[in-house]
Amino acid sequence: MQREPDLARALRALAVEARDLSLGNGVPHLTRPPSPLAFLRDWVSPNRPVVISDAISHWPALSRWTTSYFREVLGKKEVTVAVTPNGYADAVFEDHFVMPEERTMPFGRFLDIVEGKEKPPGVFYVQKQCSNLCSEFPEIAADVELEIGWASEALGKKPDAINFWMGEENAVTSYRPFVPYGLYQPAVYREREDGGFDVVEQTFSAKVPWIPVDPLHPDLHRYPCFGDACPLHCSLHAGETLYLPSLWFHHVRQSHGCIAVNFWYDMEYDIKYSYFQLLDRLSGDASDAACGAIGSPFESEAA
Amino acid sequence: MQREPDLARALRALAVEARDLSLGNGVPHLTRPPSPLAFLRDWVSPNRPVVISDAISHWPALSRWTTSYFREVLGKKEVTVAVTPNGYADAVFEDHFVMPEERTMPFGRFLDIVEGKEKPPGVFYVQKQCSNLCSEFPEIAADVELEIGWASEALGKKPDAINFWMGEENAVTSYRPFVPYGLYQPAVYREREDGGFDVVEQTFSAKVPWIPVDPLHPDLHRYPCFGDACPLHCSLHAGETLYLPSLWFHHVRQSHGCIAVNFWYDMEYDIKYSYFQLLDRLSGDASDAACGAIGSPFESEAA
Repeated sequence: MQREPDLARALRALAVEARDLSLGNGVPHLTRPPSPLAFLRDWVSPNRPVVISDAISHWPALSRWTTSYFREVLGKKEVTVAVTPNGYADAVFEDHFVMPEERTMPFGRFLDIVEGKEKPPGVFYVQKQCSNLCSEFPEIAADVELEIGWASEALGKKPDAINFWMGEENAVTSYRPFVPYGLYQPAVYREREDGGFDVVEQTFSAKVPWIPVDPLHPDLHRYPCFGDACPLHCSLHAGETLYLPSLWFHHVRQSHGCIAVNFWYDMEYDIKYSYFQLLDRLSGDASDAACGAIGSPFESEAA
Repeated sequence: MQREPDLARALRALAVEARDLSLGNGVPHLTRPPSPLAFLRDWVSPNRPVVISDAISHWPALSRWTTSYFREVLGKKEVTVAVTPNGYADAVFEDHFVMPEERTMPFGRFLDIVEGKEKPPGVFYVQKQCSNLCSEFPEIAADVELEIGWASEALGKKPDAINFWMGEENAVTSYRPFVPYGLYQPAVYREREDGGFDVVEQTFSAKVPWIPVDPLHPDLHRYPCFGDACPLHCSLHAGETLYLPSLWFHHVRQSHGCIAVNFWYDMEYDIKYSYFQLLDRLSGDASDAACGAIGSPFESEAA
């Protein structure tokens, strides 16, 4: 019986205990894909991330996806590319939630930029969440399987979206570390004639809940709570697959130009989701001191 | 962003949301056993209880376990029987956590009492948590299967204990509704010569955390929070199986003399457990107002 429960202390204890009991200090590695049952039991149900080797070795993409192949198959295709001054698409900049400038260009030109043959201002990234692999890149969709079989069987559903990502070394995907949250007016980057970027507010859009901390350069003076955060780090090599459970914040950067395919599976709104919502509701009080968990209302991902 | 989070309100919201999104208002019913994968995905991972028909239809016990069979096979066997004045074994009475008086008697005499042929003071119940089916009743263990196959496969382990329960109509198993908790000095019932029962304190035992509310007759004046509790009710008929997930409080009573076999499977100390611990830590502040969840550090049960 705790007579004076300290919310912040309780949340810190949650993080420490979850780490000690089940999450550990790193992301475990499987040398081969799990059975659907083992995937469900050991990773999905306890909501633990895992890196899996040899899950996509049979994909033609692994050997086929080179820039010369892309030039041949997609070179003249007009595609949508996200452009930012700093690599951060969908991130808080000062007091706005800033989305990338979206430009249409031939894929061949995007490849020139990725390969450094052309050096315009900004960072270029093909990144969408709208199942663009099938809709925008049907020419290369046959190079992969359109689901992760053991994941679909375990989760009892097909992927909700399959996305193709390709970016330069300094492209960074949207991320969402856990505290603090804020509501930010949406905006987009727009390149000026001088090559710099303006932040153009989207006046009529609703505010977006997002996390203002850059996990690579956290402002601990402004957000001291982030010093208590316990991120897990892992590196993914070519051919490896990450299972990212629902309700985990994540942040992705790349050691060099990279391609990824991710599969979103709809999450279940089960007791874990409700517990996460509880944490969210309590965060108003605790965000100055809480260290902890693990979450965004995001979906399961294999990338 | 909630500026003044109200802990009690947040916990009530958790209960309401969990009920709306995933738990519902009753215990669902399956007409046949699920596959291991479906059991894991639909019930274990989301921590939802379910009643299953036709899971133990092949057990000889279903037709074989009659009082005349028990008299023949076990009649002269000395067994341990829990005796209480009121049917409540392992429950808070006034300011003690009171355990039953344990008496040794021939099983045949216990059957006489269950059948009303003998009417001594008190309520008699064969109830143990120490895997008594195999240790105390090996003569009838072959009448059941010693695991629930699809549950063992799903959970990746064998049962930790298999217990045989047999009691009169007014026997009630230990229960643990969720709030409030207290620490109680252990005691045992001991029959006096006049047929009444004394509560004999176990002075040297450590205090036990337990819930003082009787869910059948809650003292809402003393524990107003219990009025917000949202129990799920279900009836189990002969041959049916209940999956009771870990971290659920439960309370069992019987419409008439009943026999049950339960299988405890060790729980996983995963994120759900850690969230439950968070609730427990927060309960000091919120126990006067919280409605909610769902739990005891108990194991998975099929009974």
